[in-house]
Amino acid sequence: MPDTIAPPSFGVTTGPLPASRKVHVDARLRVAMREIDLSPAAGEPPVRVYDTSGPYTDAAARIDIARGLAELRRPWIEGRGDVEAYDGRTVRPEDNGLADGAASAVPVFDRRARRPLRARDGWAPTQLAYARAGIVTPEMEYVAIRENLGRERLRSAGRDGESFGAEIPDHVTPEFVRAEIARGRAIIPANVNHPESEPMIIGRNFLVKINANIGNSIVTSSVAEEVEKMVWSIRWGADTVMDLSTGRNIHTTREWILRNAPVPIGTVPIYQALEKVGGRAEDLTWEIYRDTLIEQCEQGVDYFTIHAGVRLAHIPLTASRVTGIVSRGGSIMAKWCLAHHRESFLYERFADICEIMRAYDVAFSLGDGLRPGSIADANDAAQFAELETLGELTRIAWKHDVQVMIEGPGHVPMHKIKVNMEKQLAVCGEAPFYTLGPLTTDIAPGYDHITSGIGAAMIGWFGTAMLCYVTPKEHLGLPDRDDVKVGVVTYKIAAHAADLAKGHPAARERDDALSRARFEFRWRDQFNLSLDPETAERFHDQTLPAEGAKLAHFCSMCGPKFCSMKISQEVRDAARGMEAKAEEFRAGGGEIYKVLSGVAAAGVD
Amino acid sequence: MPDTIAPPSFGVTTGPLPASRKVHVDARLRVAMREIDLSPAAGEPPVRVYDTSGPYTDAAARIDIARGLAELRRPWIEGRGDVEAYDGRTVRPEDNGLADGAASAVPVFDRRARRPLRARDGWAPTQLAYARAGIVTPEMEYVAIRENLGRERLRSAGRDGESFGAEIPDHVTPEFVRAEIARGRAIIPANVNHPESEPMIIGRNFLVKINANIGNSIVTSSVAEEVEKMVWSIRWGADTVMDLSTGRNIHTTREWILRNAPVPIGTVPIYQALEKVGGRAEDLTWEIYRDTLIEQCEQGVDYFTIHAGVRLAHIPLTASRVTGIVSRGGSIMAKWCLAHHRESFLYERFADICEIMRAYDVAFSLGDGLRPGSIADANDAAQFAELETLGELTRIAWKHDVQVMIEGPGHVPMHKIKVNMEKQLAVCGEAPFYTLGPLTTDIAPGYDHITSGIGAAMIGWFGTAMLCYVTPKEHLGLPDRDDVKVGVVTYKIAAHAADLAKGHPAARERDDALSRARFEFRWRDQFNLSLDPETAERFHDQTLPAEGAKLAHFCSMCGPKFCSMKISQEVRDAARGMEAKAEEFRAGGGEIYKVLSGVAAAGVD
Repeated sequence: MPDTIAPPSFGVTTGPLPASRKVHVDARLRVAMREIDLSPAAGEPPVRVYDTSGPYTDAAARIDIARGLAELRRPWIEGRGDVEAYDGRTVRPEDNGLADGAASAVPVFDRRARRPLRARDGWAPTQLAYARAGIVTPEMEYVAIRENLGRERLRSAGRDGESFGAEIPDHVTPEFVRAEIARGRAIIPANVNHPESEPMIIGRNFLVKINANIGNSIVTSSVAEEVEKMVWSIRWGADTVMDLSTGRNIHTTREWILRNAPVPIGTVPIYQALEKVGGRAEDLTWEIYRDTLIEQCEQGVDYFTIHAGVRLAHIPLTASRVTGIVSRGGSIMAKWCLAHHRESFLYERFADICEIMRAYDVAFSLGDGLRPGSIADANDAAQFAELETLGELTRIAWKHDVQVMIEGPGHVPMHKIKVNMEKQLAVCGEAPFYTLGPLTTDIAPGYDHITSGIGAAMIGWFGTAMLCYVTPKEHLGLPDRDDVKVGVVTYKIAAHAADLAKGHPAARERDDALSRARFEFRWRDQFNLSLDPETAERFHDQTLPAEGAKLAHFCSMCGPKFCSMKISQEVRDAARGMEAKAEEFRAGGGEIYKVLSGVAAAGVD
Repeated sequence: MPDTIAPPSFGVTTGPLPASRKVHVDARLRVAMREIDLSPAAGEPPVRVYDTSGPYTDAAARIDIARGLAELRRPWIEGRGDVEAYDGRTVRPEDNGLADGAASAVPVFDRRARRPLRARDGWAPTQLAYARAGIVTPEMEYVAIRENLGRERLRSAGRDGESFGAEIPDHVTPEFVRAEIARGRAIIPANVNHPESEPMIIGRNFLVKINANIGNSIVTSSVAEEVEKMVWSIRWGADTVMDLSTGRNIHTTREWILRNAPVPIGTVPIYQALEKVGGRAEDLTWEIYRDTLIEQCEQGVDYFTIHAGVRLAHIPLTASRVTGIVSRGGSIMAKWCLAHHRESFLYERFADICEIMRAYDVAFSLGDGLRPGSIADANDAAQFAELETLGELTRIAWKHDVQVMIEGPGHVPMHKIKVNMEKQLAVCGEAPFYTLGPLTTDIAPGYDHITSGIGAAMIGWFGTAMLCYVTPKEHLGLPDRDDVKVGVVTYKIAAHAADLAKGHPAARERDDALSRARFEFRWRDQFNLSLDPETAERFHDQTLPAEGAKLAHFCSMCGPKFCSMKISQEVRDAARGMEAKAEEFRAGGGEIYKVLSGVAAAGVD
């Protein structure tokens, strides 16, 4: 087979969403946002929304998957003068799960001899180090503009929410971003070798973010499908994407994804390390793991899930669980620890890991390898013992100037969710929390996006900074394109519901614009303002497909005579008249029936 | 057209769910439940679950839609000696929205000259009156058995939950049911003319219930479709069904539904009354409304939504809302009030309404006609003014021995949900709360089952007794069969998550059984225990369709090498050995490496 195969099937989904335009705010930084145009009848300005989709939804962009995205951040990275290019590690067949000497059967991304960057000797090119030194980077400026969504233009409706101690400012300044990063309360995952990424921030005092997992497994799915899944998931709002590929072609798949990803990419390096030892957990070594970390640092992975909190002493705490250890990485490390009857090498080598990650500014996502996998196991001793260890590791990472977030559960009934957030804040020094759901019941396989969307909305409200999506296929199989979309939209709902409840100053703007459109029967605006315009329109059109129905003052749910919105519009005019009359009444002390006659005369037919 | 048309297309979905059997507990009352058989490998007894589906899932039942269901409750009703049969109101063409003298174009259910029942003079045949008199009815005994789900057989895992003041007993006795009804904290909707219904209870100290709305609109859907939607919705778990039909054939559709419904049926009588006056709200009169109430009481409707809290003085409070009045009934009454510049006839005639409903034991569902229709309008003055009125009306209904529940919002952001529950309990004397969602954001039309499932789970946890489902088609069109199923399953999730969080003593049994099946790779058991076995199996089979994969120790999500459940099983055996060794270690004060060697030798390969 040829070394390089042309990528014929690497088509990805491009083009703007309905009625939407990509805009770039700030002449220098060109911060990407989306503006949704409303119909002229609205008499309202476009609604500006957070946009994770990168150039793929920009009508003006030319997309060439084989070349990868433009390197927005390269001048910023190189301009700081603290990194150097070097001859990176040679890609070996085993990186792709292939026998020695074997050629890849899938096309390889042409890096055009680009050499990886890493820290110059003694330097720490991390956003945390800059923040601590008082430096406001372009990445920090970018996210400040991005988070504001032009909120200074909005009429302020006043703050309304319960933030549980989060300190969300009215207006995000670059200095606020810097201060939050400096104290470890937020991170900008931004590997120096992933200059294609548009900076984004994860922290309790910013918009709640969501992550989408993609990745092939040995059983199914191709490289091209995974690249499209990445593009597809950011189209619908994924803020970061984790490539959880296992099986063959891991390295190659990841390279294609990274070179075309405008969002941070996370991985779980132990998966690839395990492939390198033929799937035998007990054969893992620090050397193989270290080599895998460097391989992925050089490729540009922005954050690593590392299950360094699964300590030997914690494992017996899982013995009486209903579902044991459900984290893949956690179970691999537990098996290693038991097989060698010794402490986890991830824990013992944690300082060495920090040194590697600092050199590239890869952030930690400290894995919760002992998270509960069932309602029965929620908040148990194993889970909280590991959390304590994650707190200890957070402080070590910070000492090394490495950014950190903390992974959380899992399966947790509603009444046990809040204590997870409180403990995490206390134990991990307010490092951002990044949870998987949690699922609030175990009885609905096929609907775990919903069982977990409930828990995600709640824990997001309580302070979780990023929510890892769960798709309808959870526990059952590898998600396909439709599952990815449903998972992303469900989690956008959870994150937005959390932003509303926290009292984020700009969150309600979109709700209000959509509600006004609904009340005024601007069907097109209602579709276009929704998280998934295509589905909204398709559902409407199942019963009323004619274009004229888009102007009708009813839908098929209630029909024309029973549409409350329609009747209510008539009522409102009268009620407003009545309110004015009531004012007059109160002022004049008149008789009730005179006032009401006035109302009736005001136009209720 | 003929007067009566044979019902050729009235096929409904019948047959048990996978691995499930209908069981009848108690020789006298024959309380229906479902038992899910597990595979022999489980070594566990069948899991007993609450079953709303009636005879349709009973392999032994003979279903004949044209004859209707058996009249389970008739001997109980007649045995009390407080009702009498009489010549009911004559069905008129206008009841079906037809011109005078016109024949119905749809088949009419043959009542076989059955005469309606009503209270004998001076009697109050309501469950509330009986409860207050210290009488435990068969209906109360039935629901006591039904709620327990055989929980006395369960190993008690201890209570675990936060109930916010709900007082859920370890074991439900008929006397407990009676006491809860007597103090107005629970209702059994049970019209004496709907003897086909299997008794169920709605109250904060019982399992959280869900309602499914069905009903044609003038735009779409036929009688046969609506009957099947009723059967379909109870198959997946709807505890009550509201028939919200508008347009033609309302009376006939309702008759077919009632005669074949083993669950309580609710309606909004103002919809039919409005049809009788050609859709002109201002033409509504007390006489037409009263006639409609009696018509529906005689048919057997179990609860009525009555928007008597929409008072003239409340209407101006809605004038500055973003979405005005979004309740259909609320907007109709508001229009009437303004058109006539007078107080609502529902409010003024409330005592008369109570007298009618008492005669048949129809329960009130006091409608929240001024509920918020957008996040912007949540918890506003109009909403809470109406709630105060509903509290006042509750006390009047109770004085008349009529059962009451209270409807609630709507659209409410998460941080404003709890106060709704607290206010409702305080203002309405702990009458059961029955909420629509609430939706926690407005930005996801097409996914409002999810935006509202989040709010429903939370308010259910806080104390709401019944959750009215929202389907994916909400705001967009009339739900079809698939939408009904998704809505019901989503709300079963919300209700069950609430039961878990409240600490219901039997709720976790099904979660634990499913989690054990998951951990042990009993795929069939996992599917069968889920709320929707068909979807779970279909999702699994999309990537691994072979029957052998149902025995595999992995799925396509992670593949064989990365399945944490598989690795974890290996780890567990070792960890259990380690735990034993640790015990030995603690007891003997031995050396750590000796213990760990023991673990390694214990069998980790």
